[in-house]
Amino acid sequence: MKKIKFAIIGSGTIGGGVVDLFVSNIDIVKKKTGINFELSLVVDLDDSKLEKPKNYGIKVSKNYKDAIKSDVDIIVELVGGIDFAWNLYNEAILNGKHFVTANKALIADRIYQMFKLARENKKYIGFEASVAGGIPIIKTIKESLLANKIECIEGIINGTTNYILTKMHKEKISFKEALLTAQKLGFAEADPTLDINGTDAASKIAILAAISSNQNIGLKDVYVEGINDIEFIDIKEAEDLGYVIKLIAMFKIDENNNIEIRVNPTLVSLSNPLANINNEYNAVLVAGDFVGKTMYYGRGAGARPTASAVFSDIIDIGNKIAFNKEYNPNLLFIDEENKVKSHEEIYSKYYLRLITEDKVGILAKIAKVMGDNNISISSLIQRDIYKKDGVVPLVFTTHIALEKDFFKAIELIKGFNFVKEIVYYRIID
Amino acid sequence: MKKIKFAIIGSGTIGGGVVDLFVSNIDIVKKKTGINFELSLVVDLDDSKLEKPKNYGIKVSKNYKDAIKSDVDIIVELVGGIDFAWNLYNEAILNGKHFVTANKALIADRIYQMFKLARENKKYIGFEASVAGGIPIIKTIKESLLANKIECIEGIINGTTNYILTKMHKEKISFKEALLTAQKLGFAEADPTLDINGTDAASKIAILAAISSNQNIGLKDVYVEGINDIEFIDIKEAEDLGYVIKLIAMFKIDENNNIEIRVNPTLVSLSNPLANINNEYNAVLVAGDFVGKTMYYGRGAGARPTASAVFSDIIDIGNKIAFNKEYNPNLLFIDEENKVKSHEEIYSKYYLRLITEDKVGILAKIAKVMGDNNISISSLIQRDIYKKDGVVPLVFTTHIALEKDFFKAIELIKGFNFVKEIVYYRIID
Repeated sequence: MKKIKFAIIGSGTIGGGVVDLFVSNIDIVKKKTGINFELSLVVDLDDSKLEKPKNYGIKVSKNYKDAIKSDVDIIVELVGGIDFAWNLYNEAILNGKHFVTANKALIADRIYQMFKLARENKKYIGFEASVAGGIPIIKTIKESLLANKIECIEGIINGTTNYILTKMHKEKISFKEALLTAQKLGFAEADPTLDINGTDAASKIAILAAISSNQNIGLKDVYVEGINDIEFIDIKEAEDLGYVIKLIAMFKIDENNNIEIRVNPTLVSLSNPLANINNEYNAVLVAGDFVGKTMYYGRGAGARPTASAVFSDIIDIGNKIAFNKEYNPNLLFIDEENKVKSHEEIYSKYYLRLITEDKVGILAKIAKVMGDNNISISSLIQRDIYKKDGVVPLVFTTHIALEKDFFKAIELIKGFNFVKEIVYYRIID
Repeated sequence: MKKIKFAIIGSGTIGGGVVDLFVSNIDIVKKKTGINFELSLVVDLDDSKLEKPKNYGIKVSKNYKDAIKSDVDIIVELVGGIDFAWNLYNEAILNGKHFVTANKALIADRIYQMFKLARENKKYIGFEASVAGGIPIIKTIKESLLANKIECIEGIINGTTNYILTKMHKEKISFKEALLTAQKLGFAEADPTLDINGTDAASKIAILAAISSNQNIGLKDVYVEGINDIEFIDIKEAEDLGYVIKLIAMFKIDENNNIEIRVNPTLVSLSNPLANINNEYNAVLVAGDFVGKTMYYGRGAGARPTASAVFSDIIDIGNKIAFNKEYNPNLLFIDEENKVKSHEEIYSKYYLRLITEDKVGILAKIAKVMGDNNISISSLIQRDIYKKDGVVPLVFTTHIALEKDFFKAIELIKGFNFVKEIVYYRIID
């Protein structure tokens, strides 16, 4: 039987999951692949984290160089962060190792350089676990949908924020209360900043965009807004209009390969399957020119689902090493440039909620500013029952408009002294 | 550039879709794979169906032997039916060709023999398009989730019946009316028998079960019920109880590898993501021991989505031919036996609607029969507003029960002369 050896660097939550999977299911894997996968070494700086692999009789070390210098075929990086991981990647590839990682920050920072180094050294890299946990979205885009032009991706790819928004919506509670519950139940970390402000989702959509378009897209290219400021009133107004607010990561490419990429709290129409994705679940809607709309759903985090994704990479690479006669650079190419548009160049429908003084003529003035800036109003709701202290909410939805025009209108509306508050979100059907 | 040649046998709807995809996207495919895929020949008995490929300058023939005798690497079978396809498969493999098919009837009839012949002759077969159209469910189960024990699959894998049930539910119309609409819009064929009676879904779940369990499972092993007899009253009662009726194809495997496989109209809890899959869309919920619950959603039929799936097989096999140094029998094994249980041995929750005379003591008699047969009642609804002509509907839901016990209770209840009608469905959460 062919043998493939791998080492794990980083024995935290995910590393522990991969060790569990190895111990529990390696016989299934051997039977199905005909390859004897061997977990040769687990590395961590922290002795306590090496207890589990040690108890299973797996060799451990505190020095990652032991893995680099060993005869393993694949290095599995589960440390996180960019600097150490980038250094490890270079050492691994230059020392003849293939590389598997769950590190979205690393990939979303330097996918072009990573692919280039791998190709030059005829090595494979796998990063299925970097996006959406156990959902096999990377392989689906790279392989199953390869014959399609991927035209659009809309994803709920951050479990923490989806959990919080679901709680706010279903239990009619504030952002703060929902965050506390999420933290109690382990769906949000003690410091949830990178989830809440959209950075985590932005890294992931950058990776999906890069492999869908073969352009060099990274976190820095994504226009990002978080969910920090979402108020319950907007969740309620959205519901009345037939929408639910989700943190949507979006990628779109036009016929000239110009790209729109963004993460925003977004009103999602109830007819969109993403509207039904609740709690900590993730889902990615992928539209290809032939396959049409497809969606992939599951747990986007957690030791066991992520271990499933890590292992699928180990198996894929193991298969290539064991059976290929030559290096297959398949899909390991990314153009150095990208054609990402400024967010002002994109078109969207918008939801706009104003709190204004309750006086005659105000609506006319606002409507004029919108008309003057090519913003066509689709619906308007003014509910006097919400009137309080002489102010009243006005809720608009618009037809498709250019974001630059919309922002210009917003600036002008802000200038009116009768306008007390402005909140806006994008809308997708 | 490496070159892989393929021929299409059968130039109908799907064949036409594959030709369209080839003409439209072959440059993307070449760029991403580094392989020059060439469509060398399209075969059909019907001259009129060869017009399209001819107009694109593709070689055509009326004789499939021309493909067998040619130097193509891959034969793509898009004819359908079992006898001709089986014969073609044997000729193709024995003449050194790899094989791609969208033919669910063929695979669900003889997967074991097909895998065996392919292995013996060191050939690859692809059948992604045989289940759920463009949704890459076969590759996901065979590759992405390989390291999991697949414990359960629940699928809506027949678009026609899902369209009909959605229409009945949303528009409050009868089965007959919904079927007519489906036929008008092209979501049901002129003869929809195999869709309506569950056979189509049964073939597909057999294929998913076989590749998930590596057991020799076929259409003949599936316990099948269709949607012919579904009445609007049960859709309404289900809705009131928090369920929606779907045609669910289910596979379950226990720790001793005993298998439950069935297709039934089923009450699906609104908390199950399948409850939101509407119209002609398909979705497959796959639970693995590590990945947890994942779901795959998209169009389960149509020329273009199916062409996307067919092409993914052509690319996968092309990659293996072009880069492998030796045959990789990966996953092409199925044990000759299976351990499929009789449907009487399975456990389920049930929905039971009786129409009974409206007399004192009836409920006690029915409840006693259920209790005597280990059927524990979870809820009971009797609505006098539905009382008419001296009869009244009684709607029960049960806790988990053995199907054998449930059927015994049903037989006894049928024996009561005050019972005028019995309808039952299974329930999943």
